[in-house]
Parts: sequence; C-alpha cells; structure tokens
Amino acid sequence: MRSGMQFLSDNAAPVHPKLWEAMRAADKPDTPYDTDALSRELDARFTALFGRECAALWVATGTAANCLALATMVDPHGGVVCHEEAHIEMDECGAPGFYLHGAKLLLAGGAGAKLTVETIGEVLSGITRGVHQVPAQAISITQASEYGMVYRPDELAAIAALAKEHGLGLQMDGARFGNAAAFLGCSPAEAAGSVDALSFGMVKNGGMGAEAVILFDPAKADTIRYRRKRAGHLQSKGRYLAAQILAMLDDDLWLQNARAANALATEIAASAGDRLIYPVEANELFVRMNQEERSALRSQGFAFIDWNDTCVRMVTSWATNPDHATALGKAIAAL
Amino acid sequence: MRSGMQFLSDNAAPVHPKLWEAMRAADKPDTPYDTDALSRELDARFTALFGRECAALWVATGTAANCLALATMVDPHGGVVCHEEAHIEMDECGAPGFYLHGAKLLLAGGAGAKLTVETIGEVLSGITRGVHQVPAQAISITQASEYGMVYRPDELAAIAALAKEHGLGLQMDGARFGNAAAFLGCSPAEAAGSVDALSFGMVKNGGMGAEAVILFDPAKADTIRYRRKRAGHLQSKGRYLAAQILAMLDDDLWLQNARAANALATEIAASAGDRLIYPVEANELFVRMNQEERSALRSQGFAFIDWNDTCVRMVTSWATNPDHATALGKAIAAL
Amino acid sequence: MRSGMQFLSDNAAPVHPKLWEAMRAADKPDTPYDTDALSRELDARFTALFGRECAALWVATGTAANCLALATMVDPHGGVVCHEEAHIEMDECGAPGFYLHGAKLLLAGGAGAKLTVETIGEVLSGITRGVHQVPAQAISITQASEYGMVYRPDELAAIAALAKEHGLGLQMDGARFGNAAAFLGCSPAEAAGSVDALSFGMVKNGGMGAEAVILFDPAKADTIRYRRKRAGHLQSKGRYLAAQILAMLDDDLWLQNARAANALATEIAASAGDRLIYPVEANELFVRMNQEERSALRSQGFAFIDWNDTCVRMVTSWATNPDHATALGKAIAAL
Amino acid sequence: MRSGMQFLSDNAAPVHPKLWEAMRAADKPDTPYDTDALSRELDARFTALFGRECAALWVATGTAANCLALATMVDPHGGVVCHEEAHIEMDECGAPGFYLHGAKLLLAGGAGAKLTVETIGEVLSGITRGVHQVPAQAISITQASEYGMVYRPDELAAIAALAKEHGLGLQMDGARFGNAAAFLGCSPAEAAGSVDALSFGMVKNGGMGAEAVILFDPAKADTIRYRRKRAGHLQSKGRYLAAQILAMLDDDLWLQNARAANALATEIAASAGDRLIYPVEANELFVRMNQEERSALRSQGFAFIDWNDTCVRMVTSWATNPDHATALGKAIAAL
Repeated sequence: MRSGMQFLSDNAAPVHPKLWEAMRAADKPDTPYDTDALSRELDARFTALFGRECAALWVATGTAANCLALATMVDPHGGVVCHEEAHIEMDECGAPGFYLHGAKLLLAGGAGAKLTVETIGEVLSGITRGVHQVPAQAISITQASEYGMVYRPDELAAIAALAKEHGLGLQMDGARFGNAAAFLGCSPAEAAGSVDALSFGMVKNGGMGAEAVILFDPAKADTIRYRRKRAGHLQSKGRYLAAQILAMLDDDLWLQNARAANALATEIAASAGDRLIYPVEANELFVRMNQEERSALRSQGFAFIDWNDTCVRMVTSWATNPDHATALGKAIAAL
Repeated sequence: MRSGMQFLSDNAAPVHPKLWEAMRAADKPDTPYDTDALSRELDARFTALFGRECAALWVATGTAANCLALATMVDPHGGVVCHEEAHIEMDECGAPGFYLHGAKLLLAGGAGAKLTVETIGEVLSGITRGVHQVPAQAISITQASEYGMVYRPDELAAIAALAKEHGLGLQMDGARFGNAAAFLGCSPAEAAGSVDALSFGMVKNGGMGAEAVILFDPAKADTIRYRRKRAGHLQSKGRYLAAQILAMLDDDLWLQNARAANALATEIAASAGDRLIYPVEANELFVRMNQEERSALRSQGFAFIDWNDTCVRMVTSWATNPDHATALGKAIAAL
Repeated sequence: MRSGMQFLSDNAAPVHPKLWEAMRAADKPDTPYDTDALSRELDARFTALFGRECAALWVATGTAANCLALATMVDPHGGVVCHEEAHIEMDECGAPGFYLHGAKLLLAGGAGAKLTVETIGEVLSGITRGVHQVPAQAISITQASEYGMVYRPDELAAIAALAKEHGLGLQMDGARFGNAAAFLGCSPAEAAGSVDALSFGMVKNGGMGAEAVILFDPAKADTIRYRRKRAGHLQSKGRYLAAQILAMLDDDLWLQNARAANALATEIAASAGDRLIYPVEANELFVRMNQEERSALRSQGFAFIDWNDTCVRMVTSWATNPDHATALGKAIAAL
Repeated sequence: MRSGMQFLSDNAAPVHPKLWEAMRAADKPDTPYDTDALSRELDARFTALFGRECAALWVATGTAANCLALATMVDPHGGVVCHEEAHIEMDECGAPGFYLHGAKLLLAGGAGAKLTVETIGEVLSGITRGVHQVPAQAISITQASEYGMVYRPDELAAIAALAKEHGLGLQMDGARFGNAAAFLGCSPAEAAGSVDALSFGMVKNGGMGAEAVILFDPAKADTIRYRRKRAGHLQSKGRYLAAQILAMLDDDLWLQNARAANALATEIAASAGDRLIYPVEANELFVRMNQEERSALRSQGFAFIDWNDTCVRMVTSWATNPDHATALGKAIAAL
C-alpha cells in the first residue's frame, strides 16, 4: 500500500526532475567540500532572493540546519525559547542538546504550535533567579508551524521586536518555509521577517538531501563553517548539494512546488470541514478521525500518520498526484 | 587548470554511473528516514559480504561514520588511541571531541601513519595515574593509512589481540578500505581483520554522499541509530543513500573502482622512483618535489596538493583518465 | 536583618561543631585527593549504614552529586524522568545538560513535587517514535521533595518496580534525605528504597562543603571517580570532606540534626494552619501570604524567600534557634 | 612512613592556622552561595592586589579554575595552545574536553615545561587548513611550570604580545603562582603579566578547598558565574571558601607561605647538585635517582613521588618542617 496514495509526509516524495538535471550537470571533477563554484554561488543567490546580505550554507538535514544556526546564538549554559511542540523539542532526539552542548529548550505554549509575544514573555518573566537558571539567549520559531500554521508578517515583527528588546537571537525553522511563503503570497523576506537565521527547507519540497542555512549576519558564518565540519556535515562532494539548492531557486521552483502542495491540501481541506483540528494554511492536514475511519481510508489505499488518538496527519507535496488528492477529499467526505 | 588533469583528491572525482542509475531507480515515493526497503537491506548485504553478522547504517561522511562508531566504544571521560597523523586527529576539526563529548585522542607513532603493537603499547603503558588520566577505551586504525599504506592481515591480528587483551574497542577508518582490500587481494573480512566497527568508505570510491558504518556487534547499532538522528545525520530520504551503497556492492563495484585507482597510482609510482616518500600500496602518492618542480607540473595541467615543504600528494581515483596518469608519470620522470 | 531570624534556607546555617572538630582532627599531612584514610573509610561506613554493599564518594555540592550519579545511568542521547519542579530542572542552571552531555530531562507531574507511578508512566508511554525521541534511561526522585514532602516506602517500592520493569536507573536527590528519614522514622535503607544511587545531603544538615554520593552498584563507582576528577571535583585535600561526612554519621548526627529541624518546622506549621500549601513533613514550610503580611514578618526580623506570588518558603535547620521558631509561629498566627 | 617526612606534594600539607581562624570567624548564619559579604569582597581585594580592575570568584579546585577561565575564551570548536606536559593535558582526566565541550589542546614544546614564543608560533603556523583544523583561540601557561620553573616578566610580555597579535586569550594556571611571585620578588601584577585570566592557587599554599579565578576582563565574569553553577561548583556555603582566600591575602600570607616553601626547596637543591634535572626556582625538585637510592631515602622516612625512571619529584610547602628539609638535603648528598 506504500506505493498507493501517499500522504505520509512530504519527505516521502521523490526528487524533483529539475534537481536531477542540476546534479547531473554538476557531475564532473571539481574541488572538494564547499570550494566548488556552485557552493560559492550560494551567498549571492540568497542575498538576491532576500534583498539583504546573507551567508548561505548547505547541510543535509533540517536538524543540522537548525542546530548549527542556534549554535551561533546560544552558549552551552544558555537557553532557547521554543514551542512545546516544536520539532527541535519533540522529534530530533535531543539534537539541540548535542549541538548546543547541553543548552536548554525553554518551552512556551501557543495555539497551532505558534509562539506569541505573550507566551514567549511568560517564559522570559519566569527567569528571575540569576545563575540558578539558564538565561534565554534565543527564540526559535517554525514557519510553517508543526501544525501547518503560518506566522503573519505582523506576528513576526512583534516577535522580532521582543527578541531585540531582550537581546535574544531569533532563528526560524523553515522546513516548510516555501509552503508558508506560498500561503502568504509575499516576498521571502516578508515571510522570514527579521530573523537572524533561517533553515530554508528544500528536502520536503523536492530536494534529495540538501537544506540551506541562511545567516543574515554573515559574520557568523565562520562559526557555522567550523561547526559543520566538526559535526561531519561538510560533505566532500558538496557540489551535489549546492546544485540541488540552486536548482530550487531557479525560476522559483521552491515556490512553485510549495504552491502545488498547498493547493492540494486546500482542496482536501474543503472536504474535511469541521474535522480539521487546525485551519489548513500550508500543506498539512490534521483531521479528526476514529480508528474505524482510519482503517476505512487505509483500505482504500491512502497512507498517512496516526498523529494521536484524536487525529491523523496528512501531508501533500509537490509530487502528490492531484487525482489522489481529489480521491482523498471525497473519501473523507464520505466517511 | 582545475578541470585539467585532476590528482587533487579522490573526493574530486564525479559520481559513478551505476550509482546514478541506482538512485534514479529509487526515485519514487517511499517511507522516510531509514524505514525504506533499500535501507533495510543493508544489514543482510554486509553480513553476506563479511561472512559474519553485522549491522550497517548509512551516513553522509566519513567523519560522522568514524565518530558514531567510536561513540559506541568510548565514554566521554575515555580515550582513543590513534596515530598522530590520523585523519580524526588532523583533519576533522575536533569532530571526535564533539561526538565523544570531550574524550581524548591518545596519539601514537608508527611509520607510514600505521600504528603498531609497539606504538600502541607505549601509549597504554603511559597510563598509570588512575583517575588523573583518561583511560584508553578504543583503538582507531586507518585502512589504508593517511599515507596510503596498508595493514597486512597479520598486523591487524596483532592489533586486535592487543585490543582484546586490554579490553579496548577497535575501530577502522576505511575511507579507502576498497583500495586496501584491492591491494591485499584478500577478502573484505581479511582486510578488516577483527575490528568491532568499520567505516566503509564509498564517497572517495565513486559515491556521492553515502558511507557505510559497519558494526560487527549488531547490538550496538541501536546506540548509533539514536546518535545518528541526534547528530542530524538521519536523512529523511535515506533511500538515496542506501541505493548508492547497494550499487557499490553489486558486482563488487567498490573493488573494481579501487583496483582501477590503485593500478594508475602504481603506474605513476614506477616513474616516481626514489622521489616516493612512502611505497605506493593504494591510490596515494607522496612525491618529493621542490617548488620549481611543482610549478612545472602545474603549468602542464596537473592538479595536486602541496602536502608540506618536502612533498606533494597525488591521488588517483576510479575516474582518473589513464592517459592523464601516463602523462603524469612521464612528467615526473622528466623533472 | 539578615543576621536576624533566619528561615531563608537550611544552607544559610553555619557548620556543626562536631564537623569542625572532625576537620581539625584531620589537619595533618596526609596523602592527597581521595587516597587518605578517611576517604577510604566511606565505603564501609555507608555499607554498614544501609545494610547493603555500596560505594560512597564525597563531592562538594548536591548538583555535582546528582549529576555524577545520573551520568552512570544515562547516555548523552538518553533521558531522565524527573518532576517538572525538581531541583535538577529548575535550579541547577542546566547542570544535567552539562554532565550528561545534552541528555534530556523528561518532565512529569505529581502533587507536592513527588512523582508517581502514574505520572512517570505517562511520560514513558509518550515515547513511541523510535530514534526521533530520546529514550528514557533513568528516573530521578527527590527525598524529601522540593515541597518538603516525603516518599513513603510503598511509594518508593512502586517506583522502583516501575524502573526495573522498564530497565531504568533510579536516582534519588537526597539533599534533605535526613529530614525525610527523620520524618519516616524508619531505617536509612527504607527511606532510600531500592534506588541505584543516592545523593546523601550533608550541607543543608550541618555540613560545610561535602555531600556523599552513594552507589548501590559499587561497580559503577569507577565511572564516577573519573567523572569527578574530570569535573574538577576531586579536591586535593579530600580528607576534610571525608571528615565532615564521617562526623555526620557518628552517633547519627545527621539524623539528630534533621530531627531538630523537622521538629521546629512542625511547630511553626501548627500555627500556620490552612495557610500551608503543602503538609509539613520535613523542614520546609510553604505559607500562603500576601505582600503586606510578608512585609510585616520581615519588619519583625524574619528572613525567608518569596517563593511566588501566592506563598513564601520558610526553612528550618539544625541550627535554628527554637525561640525564633516559636516567635515565627506566633507571628504567623497573628497575621 | 606517610606521617614521616613529607615531600610528596604541597597538597599533602595541612591547612594554615590563619585560615582556620578565618573560617571559624565566618561560622554564623549568612546568605547562601556567593551572596555573602565575604564573597562579595573578593573583587575589590584582588583589584587592589593587582592594581587593575578584575573580578574574582572562588572555586574548589585548580582544575575547575583553569577550565572555567578557558571557557570564557574558547569555543567548543576551538583550541588552546598549551605545553605538552601541562597539567591540563596530563593530569586532569580530560577536564578541558569536558568544560570546553570538546575543544582541543594544541600541544607545544619548551624546556622546563615553559612555552616560548617560538614553540607557540610553531603550533600556530601549522594551522593552515581552514575548517579542517580547530582554530587556536587561547594560550594557557603555567606559572610556575610543571617543573617548577618560572616565567620572567619579559617572557610573559613576549607571549602576551603574541597572543594579542593573533587575537588569542591568555590564561595562566597559577597553582603555584605564589611560589613564582616569591621567586621573582616582583609584584603580583608583574608575575602574572598581561594575562586575561589567572587561576590563583591557594590550596597548595595553605588552603583547604578554595582557589581564586581572576578575570582581568570583569565583563566575562558573568559567563563564569553561570558555568560555575552549571558545573556544580557554586557551593551553597561559599563564605567558607571566601574566608580562606581573604585570609590568604591578609598580610600577604600567600607570599609568606610561598617564600617559606621556596627557601626549603632551595636549601635541598644546594645538596642535590647536578642530580637536579631542572634548576629549582619554586618549591619543586626533580632529582635524578636510581631505584636503590630511592629505596634508601624512603627507608629513612622520606616520602616523595617516582616521577619517572630517571628522577623523583620532591615538593616543599609552607608546612614543611625545616629539619626535615635539612635532613633530606643531607640524605641526598650522602647517596
């Protein structure tokens, strides 16, 4: 059934043809690590995309991207405010603890797995006991959130202002940044707001094994370059990662792919009605469903994840077959 | 001139066509991380290759492969005996310190960057002051060594016996394991000896971004699985890494590639004569050369590394053009 | 006012005269670190006290004691189930993250800051996603708890059974272990239950700068010995720490001191009535009090901590002047 | 024989009577941790002693003092240049790896375990391969050195200039700083030179369990305060540590004690003649001696350490009985 109708994850999709082309075009002898021409092109390409100077590095995974960026902001004795259901807290096997050498995640609430100025503020105001508590040094937000919800520019601005006021770094986990930008219909710069670092997700959006870490303070890139090597993430044939990323930027492929995924999620959502736990803004659906209903859908060939006892998670991607999406919508409506 | 005649590194070679085929064949929706069918095939394939039960995991780099394996053997307060010119000591930006949480590399000598029972023994016999010194808990050897020299089966056996006697883990950095096995003309099992873990190098030998970590005590694989995730090395589209590795095993492609590289290195070596600092056993040449000679070769289109003031390093790969190798041999002879 | 009537913390008390005597008696040339006769006496003395074989080491602080013990149970990629208000979570500036190299605290609830089989079970049953989540490897409980509440032998037995069932280590933070044992009126062995390691608190109970880490699996002591050195906690004149601990064991001074502290807390509690947030079982009182009431007490010379907006914390010690306790009781009653 | 004539280590000496007095004087209720009046006096006292603004914190051991100071200078991916026989390399069970989260010690040579501008320069000039090697971020020197040799002010100035030129932090392990200052006969400021941080040793010089970390950039003290807590080194009855340190400063007791120790070492040295491996500048003697000679001395009641097959180490302290020193000198001369 796995080769059936796939809504397990956008990770389950294949690699976009344009990326294969780009990787093949890069398939000749070249200098190793990130000294090749493609890797060296990244800074300029993302600087153009965001309209402000940045440094951009490839890494294989979002986990590494998030952690390497946070490591430029947080001391081993510091803390990162993040949502209590953030990926870095829930799904990365303690990677921040590893990369940040024991720094602490300071958990905040917020509807739809989105932080707010209020929920961040509550965490900050609880830090009152001097050296007995870890000091907050950064905030990490996820665009789109774990529940597929999207920070609006004004929300981003408010959080950035709070970060600035408290001298905190601001990092964005953009595993589904494309989906968020596609939803907002704004520029990448607006979808990112004034973050200091962005994990610009590619793998869920058509890539094979390359994500981009964007540092809007390029001076911090050196730290990441060392840390990336030290973490075993400086691949020796980096040109194949750079090629993927550059192909994704060409003709805004990242945005095209995200739009396609979002559109199908929206279509399915229309059929799911009040079964939806969260409004569908990006490419994820959290759909209330009992065990019989889940079985019924699975017997029809739909693959998805049991999120918890209340709901399932269904995810569309650039590669989702539109007929499968239509079928899924009908199947849900018919439950 | 960089796209000229390339002897910089085996890392500078492109990806073998068979691996492209395999990756394309894997290019369909599948379950994420290492739950796909290809990833799940690795254990059995390497068990067959080595003739003894093992667990096998993909990771992107040799740095990660070495460190993840060592992390199953060494406590944060422990030490790893390795050669003073080993890659983990010299070229990985302190990755063992990161992955092993501050464990110490205990440096030993040995000709050609190969450890011996004697040089390891010297390090061990210097550990006499109880808790004031880190206890040795593992030995790391490199097959072939940093200088392209190959441990013979009897040397491996002696080191394994020493490790066993002292209760130490034994890890092999096999970034060029194929080249060593090709040189020895023996089975993979003999070329690895009784190590507990092997980083089976693929990237220098035709791969794109996948190395295999082999654990001959499969019970330890669980630790690595967690640590791999935590290190951001559990790629979500792992099937593309597994596909590369499996393709490399098919028809012993790894061995064919290594033999081709070795043969060209041997050919060049014949022309280099007593300029060679080390006998050429694998695919690396360390050639005594002054600055004018280096310039002369470079002006003819040969790319290589200045190893130090005494010598240059030249490396052949599966993709080295035989004509380039012949030309290099002649050029060296004509210096 | 600080030298007034002191209920800030049992840490604020001076050092017991018997300990001064013992330290002075140790004040002669001796071998350094923990090779002196006093330090070597610890294992046997605690083995006798607990009636089962154990290893015992001195360290300067409870933070180090807890972390060193947990480090024998938990991998860097593992987790420790503890109460969400436990000292290791709230008040140690991320020390477990440091000592356990990024391992995660897995927070559970429970009235009075005591874990229960149910609250621990909830955490454990939420760990279902394989390598994406850190595996629980230990449970840490606090006897008496942050709120001065005491685990009963049957509660300890139930938690120990759960730990055993799940293969988890069980560690006890006994910063106020004496107060708990005094309350229970049972043997030390019963007050500790079947834990694997106990931080036997001395400093809050009359010590100067020595706590005992007790390992009921003495084979694990070696790990701690190395880790203690590596953490800079192997003091070179360890005999002065050993002397404090041994003096505390002589004639059950630890129990006498704890009983004295408990008795005064109980006396005050009687006056506090339903202002008490938690029943007073050990030597801490959490007393509901508004700002004016706090000011009123402070103006009478009483020192205590503002725990939160709802209540203050008052702590008695072996050194609390009984007249001060009586005065405090009256003052509270008169509010 | 241990209570015989003690030259094992200055650690083996008892606690100076003035420190006992000071600790007893501090023995009353006070606020915990480092909030007491004595602890808060440290900054001013050391600022006066060194004639330039500094922050001063107590910790229990030199290991912690060195590591906490280095942690203000070195990233987890960085390196510390130190002597290959430095205490932090040889005798601290990898503590720098723990406190600096895997940062690397970059080993340099130098006669008498003293670094020189040349030996440091050799290490620095070997760092040429970008992210593949850890960058040097600090230099650590030991005053007096492991072999009891003392950096002269001009040597310190040259090293400080080198550090400045390369943007490196400069840390001094002053476990025997008093002995060095006594030998030099100069001000403490001159004996420390332009270091950024100094571990001002007290325990070997009459203390019980308190060393002072001095930060000449007081802004960095905050980092250390957090790290000290996190390392379990923020003792709750800190006033007893502060009392020791303050007593040591009163009437230059630290200098008096060091002078006494040095004088006896010098006296013994006169008898040891060309048996001395190193000139005796502080309070340590490294005396060439065969096994029979060692036995002969031991049978006369002298305690000392077998340093290696060539020599023994003998150390005097403030508490060394002058008659014992005289006897030792005679006994050596008579060998």
